[in-house]
Amino acid sequence: MKDFFNAKSIVVIGASRNPKKLGHVVLENMLNTYNGEVYVVNKEASFIMGKKCYNSISDIADKIELAVIIVPAKMVPDIVSQCSKKGVKSCIILSSGFGEIGNKKSEEKILKNARKMRILGPNCMGIYDSLSGIDTLFTKRYRQERPKKGNISLISQSGAIGAIMLDTASSEHIKMAKFISIGNRIDVDEIESLEFLEKDNDTKTIALYIEGIKNGKDFTKIMKKIKKPLIVLKAGKTKQGTKAAESHTTSLAGEPSVYSAIFRQTGAIEAMNIDEIMDFSKIMDSQPLPKGRKVQIITNGGGLGIIALDSVIENGLDVAELSSKTRKNIKDNMPEYVTISNPIDLNGDADPKRYKISIESALKDNNVDALLLIVLFQFSTLDSSMISIISDAKKYKKPIVLCSSGGEFTELYKRVIEDSGIPVYPTPNRASKALSAIVKRAEFLGKIK
Amino acid sequence: MKDFFNAKSIVVIGASRNPKKLGHVVLENMLNTYNGEVYVVNKEASFIMGKKCYNSISDIADKIELAVIIVPAKMVPDIVSQCSKKGVKSCIILSSGFGEIGNKKSEEKILKNARKMRILGPNCMGIYDSLSGIDTLFTKRYRQERPKKGNISLISQSGAIGAIMLDTASSEHIKMAKFISIGNRIDVDEIESLEFLEKDNDTKTIALYIEGIKNGKDFTKIMKKIKKPLIVLKAGKTKQGTKAAESHTTSLAGEPSVYSAIFRQTGAIEAMNIDEIMDFSKIMDSQPLPKGRKVQIITNGGGLGIIALDSVIENGLDVAELSSKTRKNIKDNMPEYVTISNPIDLNGDADPKRYKISIESALKDNNVDALLLIVLFQFSTLDSSMISIISDAKKYKKPIVLCSSGGEFTELYKRVIEDSGIPVYPTPNRASKALSAIVKRAEFLGKIK
Repeated sequence: MKDFFNAKSIVVIGASRNPKKLGHVVLENMLNTYNGEVYVVNKEASFIMGKKCYNSISDIADKIELAVIIVPAKMVPDIVSQCSKKGVKSCIILSSGFGEIGNKKSEEKILKNARKMRILGPNCMGIYDSLSGIDTLFTKRYRQERPKKGNISLISQSGAIGAIMLDTASSEHIKMAKFISIGNRIDVDEIESLEFLEKDNDTKTIALYIEGIKNGKDFTKIMKKIKKPLIVLKAGKTKQGTKAAESHTTSLAGEPSVYSAIFRQTGAIEAMNIDEIMDFSKIMDSQPLPKGRKVQIITNGGGLGIIALDSVIENGLDVAELSSKTRKNIKDNMPEYVTISNPIDLNGDADPKRYKISIESALKDNNVDALLLIVLFQFSTLDSSMISIISDAKKYKKPIVLCSSGGEFTELYKRVIEDSGIPVYPTPNRASKALSAIVKRAEFLGKIK
Repeated sequence: MKDFFNAKSIVVIGASRNPKKLGHVVLENMLNTYNGEVYVVNKEASFIMGKKCYNSISDIADKIELAVIIVPAKMVPDIVSQCSKKGVKSCIILSSGFGEIGNKKSEEKILKNARKMRILGPNCMGIYDSLSGIDTLFTKRYRQERPKKGNISLISQSGAIGAIMLDTASSEHIKMAKFISIGNRIDVDEIESLEFLEKDNDTKTIALYIEGIKNGKDFTKIMKKIKKPLIVLKAGKTKQGTKAAESHTTSLAGEPSVYSAIFRQTGAIEAMNIDEIMDFSKIMDSQPLPKGRKVQIITNGGGLGIIALDSVIENGLDVAELSSKTRKNIKDNMPEYVTISNPIDLNGDADPKRYKISIESALKDNNVDALLLIVLFQFSTLDSSMISIISDAKKYKKPIVLCSSGGEFTELYKRVIEDSGIPVYPTPNRASKALSAIVKRAEFLGKIK
């Protein structure tokens, strides 16, 4: 599979001069970031975006490693045959109109014509690689942003969900490595993609969105092999949802409870909705494993602290109890109206100094395994020194999550802090759920008894 | 209570020349939007922001209707006495350092000195009125935005949660009427605030955040009286959370299940977290009541449609089944690969025309009570005509929610559509939960059997 990502030369077959056509968007995106030779096949045009157009791939004299196909479905099998004859190693078929509308025959023809050439798709968005710049997504970049280089990789059976997740990750400053849209997966599937990402040096955390699997045994086998943190969202959690998933992907979606059991046994973390897949991925990617379940809450909003306390307990975590030494150390440095308990309520007039002392004291305390930090940046007593205070707390090697919410001003802070390696969540509940996910992983790995 | 909002003249006692002080922020915000006479009391300065400073309220010759106090706690009882003598009708005490840190005596003194004058607070953020422009919030506007004029009003026991909600609402283009921060509520409390908002012509939907109540019987009584849609978030849902709530507010938080029972019996919609209180408020405020529970899903992302189907069922709603006539009508106007079921999957290449036909056909169908619309604006085939297509669908008088998610580009669309009166949610689950809330209200009012 690495041939898809390491391709030294790429041809876009079906590139278009019309900026509204997907074939134009794909070429434009590729030229924008890919650091290699790009060839263009289009029978009618002479040049597109400055690139000479060839009538067919066989007219290109140079070696081609990856073909990206975006032509009408009925033309695809022939094009695939031409690519195979040319000696192309890997082929991404973006075109739709195959198995998903009952057209299984064309898929069989494609597989036959491909011979040794590997196929991703059809009916997919292909791949995005933040490192090599390979980008076969047919969404314009002003409409869907691409995340910066990072270590989270995503496999998605649905191109649309992939697009949303990349877009959201990018705007929230979550960094990613690779994206693989498997589509109808007539050749490359979720199993091979998982195997590939497990070995991929740039990938530290794997996120997977699936609707159904091709083969239960092989799936369980690969799941057991994955040592990297793996977050899975399985669509089709109800009877009707399962049925819809089966018709959407022409695959066996199966009983949701069976999947949940597989995930639990193999140490995969199950996400229950779209938010959670990214929420969990970013804590796994940025935070150290906790040594226990005891969470300390620090807040400058009392009400939010109570809601956080509820959510810590509701998500199966323990409420940390600070040692008397820690309490005293904090108390000696605070106005008397600060409540030093769990939560530590620093009050609406909290300044960065109060945060610094309480964050450091709590993280030094052996009774604290993880920190749920709540900061309302709406209050004027806080300034940008908060960013380094929060980011520096990483040195204590305990998981930290920040809960902040609001308008544009708070968004700015959130993005800078996310950039610095501390995951940010909009509500106490989502922050607690993320902590609970990393605790589950630590439990699975035997780091928590 | 309306005297607080109708005040023709206001004095800010404790206004400061130092832009970092809360007393400065409060005056600045008030001068920015309040359309009435503002007086300033400060012993040391001669002018603040162009306003003459008085030594004390008794030095002001003109009539004062509302006093906003932001001075150290120990000075408050005396100032309250001066205000009362001056004949001020209403008084907002923003200062903290009272009951919340055990200083109950000062509160008693304040009440005694107030005589007939009404008190909001202490330890609160006061009020914000989008209509009159009265704004006693001590958060700078560049840090915490204020929502535009609308019909949702919020009562919050926690100033911080109020601040976050106003800030978030504003950035998401949710419009609001009034905000009341009740704080330690030594005089004006949640009961009187609810009574006031029930009568207030600008308020159509009421949102309430509480940690504990003063009097269970009175609370149940007022809850029964409220005819407007009422969304309640009660903090302290676990044993520890309840304990924290009790210590934070020095009030009886009580059993969570008892509250839930009161809410159910009186037709209030209970929000389980911060997201939900605004999610539910905005659907109540903008959408007509449904006549049934049958939801139709329309999407341009297949995977998202399946997740939405799951969430519709998981939230107790029914899956609509389109009549054969509707199906035919849509089918005749679509490419063959469009799936006309529930969800209707218009495909990634869906254009505005496909959306228009399917939205209108579905909403005309008697088998459809509500619409969960999913739009991925990431795809280039959609343009800004989508805004009027979605907004015009209001004419069918069935509830519509839009689910859209992504980066900056999608955010722009979301805000314009929210502005046009269709509530937008980032995930299918939150959209379904909102529909479920409005269905509950329709059931309570007997509109759904």
